Amino acid sequence: MNPRRKFEEAGGLSRIAQVVPGLAVVCALGSWLGAVSAAWAATSSLDAPLTESAPSHGSSVSSVLILLVLIIISAKIGGALMERIRQPAVLGELVLGVLLGNLSLVGVHGLDSMKSNEAIGILAELGVIFLLFEVGLESNIKQMLEVGASSFLVALVGVVVPMLLGWGVGAWFLPASGTLIHVFIGATLCATSVGITARVLKDLGKTSAKEARIILGAAVIDDVMGLVILAAASGIIKAADRGGAGISVLDVGYIVFKAVAFLVVALWIGTRLSPRMFSIASKLNVHGMLLAVGICFCFILSYLASRIELAPIVGAFAAGLILDPVHYQDFRERGEHSIEELIRPISSFLVPVFFVLMGARVDLRTFADSSILGFAFVLTVVAILGKQACALAVLERGLDRLSVGIGMIPRGEVGLIFASTGASLMLRGSPVVSSSTYSAVVIMVILTTLITPPLLKVSVARGDRQKRLRQQASSAAHP
Amino acid sequence: MNPRRKFEEAGGLSRIAQVVPGLAVVCALGSWLGAVSAAWAATSSLDAPLTESAPSHGSSVSSVLILLVLIIISAKIGGALMERIRQPAVLGELVLGVLLGNLSLVGVHGLDSMKSNEAIGILAELGVIFLLFEVGLESNIKQMLEVGASSFLVALVGVVVPMLLGWGVGAWFLPASGTLIHVFIGATLCATSVGITARVLKDLGKTSAKEARIILGAAVIDDVMGLVILAAASGIIKAADRGGAGISVLDVGYIVFKAVAFLVVALWIGTRLSPRMFSIASKLNVHGMLLAVGICFCFILSYLASRIELAPIVGAFAAGLILDPVHYQDFRERGEHSIEELIRPISSFLVPVFFVLMGARVDLRTFADSSILGFAFVLTVVAILGKQACALAVLERGLDRLSVGIGMIPRGEVGLIFASTGASLMLRGSPVVSSSTYSAVVIMVILTTLITPPLLKVSVARGDRQKRLRQQASSAAHP
Repeated sequence: MNPRRKFEEAGGLSRIAQVVPGLAVVCALGSWLGAVSAAWAATSSLDAPLTESAPSHGSSVSSVLILLVLIIISAKIGGALMERIRQPAVLGELVLGVLLGNLSLVGVHGLDSMKSNEAIGILAELGVIFLLFEVGLESNIKQMLEVGASSFLVALVGVVVPMLLGWGVGAWFLPASGTLIHVFIGATLCATSVGITARVLKDLGKTSAKEARIILGAAVIDDVMGLVILAAASGIIKAADRGGAGISVLDVGYIVFKAVAFLVVALWIGTRLSPRMFSIASKLNVHGMLLAVGICFCFILSYLASRIELAPIVGAFAAGLILDPVHYQDFRERGEHSIEELIRPISSFLVPVFFVLMGARVDLRTFADSSILGFAFVLTVVAILGKQACALAVLERGLDRLSVGIGMIPRGEVGLIFASTGASLMLRGSPVVSSSTYSAVVIMVILTTLITPPLLKVSVARGDRQKRLRQQASSAAHP
Repeated sequence: MNPRRKFEEAGGLSRIAQVVPGLAVVCALGSWLGAVSAAWAATSSLDAPLTESAPSHGSSVSSVLILLVLIIISAKIGGALMERIRQPAVLGELVLGVLLGNLSLVGVHGLDSMKSNEAIGILAELGVIFLLFEVGLESNIKQMLEVGASSFLVALVGVVVPMLLGWGVGAWFLPASGTLIHVFIGATLCATSVGITARVLKDLGKTSAKEARIILGAAVIDDVMGLVILAAASGIIKAADRGGAGISVLDVGYIVFKAVAFLVVALWIGTRLSPRMFSIASKLNVHGMLLAVGICFCFILSYLASRIELAPIVGAFAAGLILDPVHYQDFRERGEHSIEELIRPISSFLVPVFFVLMGARVDLRTFADSSILGFAFVLTVVAILGKQACALAVLERGLDRLSVGIGMIPRGEVGLIFASTGASLMLRGSPVVSSSTYSAVVIMVILTTLITPPLLKVSVARGDRQKRLRQQASSAAHP
């Protein structure tokens, strides 16, 4: 009997993979490398003119297709590797994203188009919008208001403490710069970017825990506070530079008013409107109506949030909080799936695009400048420690305070928006955020993003253990 | 008791809608108008500079969000209206798309960005790829090969007859032009764009009927034939223009070889590879793995198809044919949904984007040029009648031949690719396809697209009725 036949009878490759589970990862890595080189070959030859003699069925969609294949394969392999070492899947998506995005450092430039491809960028943004919508669907407004006081205090402490610490770091490393610049450096530390935390909590199955609700609520409030601080800081700096009138209390008040009004009106009117909206929609009775209404509601609130300069994901989260299966009882009675179930495949397709792209946009060359590494390192430490003060602001007893503090760590794109606004502001002829400060902020954003998944995983496990012990102790005391 | 309170106790708007079902449509239309004006206000103010003092969370994603809302609402309202008059939902999506895309004729220019928005365009392309993948999943290769001979003959007749008729129409309306130009006009009529037909069959729940398989198989073969004809026709015209060597038999042979090799290799290797691919993937065991593998498989084949100048949807359809629930038994045993079920919400989100955008890209101004209307009308009639010859090419007995002929009518974007290739080819100093011929082809494409849903609906109903009668007759004869 020839060996090839024997191999095939034994089930071939798949059987081997079954016998040696590690091989599955090797096979997968092999296919990943294959996909990388295919994508490289593909995207680098895309600029070649098409043969005139044949119909061209859109070269643009073909580059998006192969980039998506590469991103999805990377996400799944990264996720699988991390789950093997008991880490949240999102960390693997980020790390493989960093690898993909920095292949140009080893001379492979074919994938550089991924970072700038407009359609991929939009798909990623839609992905994080669907993620927060999905997370919002798992809670409701009542549950959020229950922990509202804690959320507000956590957000407040999470803004004030890092800001003061950042101010101090600025004064220490850049003594020659003025106080305004130190304050602005502090401001870049006050943001919370909730995408990573929401995803880690999802990976751990904890989105409906009280701690998760406190963090998510605090992140929403944080976005409003960040908006105000950035507007105020920029206004004061402009005033100082021109010597003229900067931003007035009225202007700041207007920003606060808009943001708070959006949230209150969205939640208040939304809750009343939603059942009627579904009731009308159910009369139209077309295939796919329930999902369409859900997506439109989510997109409209995301859009409105972005129009008043809040993050679109704040609107998506609010939309998720508002919608409740009770509102679309008509559809459920006809045997339709819930909106949560309908959204799941869509987010399962698009969410990894966001995290792989987030990783890919990390430029590892930033770390090569040794002169700023010290400043960046201290800034990162302060950014992490500053948010740990949030743990103290949780009012409820018996909660996992450490996880709340850790969940507030990631700065994400919000920190970068602060830094780039600072880079465009001039004070006495030089930018408020110099290029080296900007790089330090970028490093801080990268490190806070990458460190959160493993830290949060450990602290949630620790919190669960403590809660179990406490339960055992109380059941032992009162048998 | 005040009337407002009374109204609310009666359930308000939603109750009224319940009592008067037509009101639901009116309410929906009202919200559609609201969305249109919001999108108009939104997109037209997007160019306004953002206030510098506030962080900008991407204006691009916000314009995509509001355009998607508008597209989804339009699709659902159009679908609901059409279902009320017993037409396939896709017709409503197309018609409301035409309305949206031509609002500039009544002075509303805010939505012009929809037609050119890159991200919306890519989402639409992904939509039609998911549609054909989904339709492919509902069949398998064996079922396709069963009707393979009919598919081939239908495709062949559907290319030859319209081409000859188009040639004749060209010779009749443009007697001064040379034969080569008449042949090229014939060539623009030979394509079949299967998206519309696939969608109508889906709306009618007929995708797994034998007639549907014949049409879908014929459309795939047609894409290969169209590729060859366009290459050959362009080559011959170039040769005639330069007086030099044009396309050789070898070149044409190579194009045929590539296309056929792709289909054979994809189907042959794909079927063998797919179970192993899923087996390896199931070892990695990450959330969302099954969907990820399915999407990647679909995207890779779509990408490869587009690389050899076939339509990406041909690859997506092939991918759907290859994948079979048996291949991913491991996943099913863990209680996961099938790929079909997982794809459904994604296609339910993206497919309407394709059809609304297809409608929006129709430029009604083309119809204003009365000098070409006669030519366009005859070309359309010939395009429709020519494909009816396909009905004669069906080998199987007792099938609904009329529906096969009607299913082959839509020309879609393939006809436009032919026409624009012709417009870029020069013969003795003037383009092969003149601007008025191009407009006539555009009108032909629009009319064949819009006429197919209602015609196919009628003919499928007629076919069903006849089959029922035949069954009754045969059961009466042999009781």
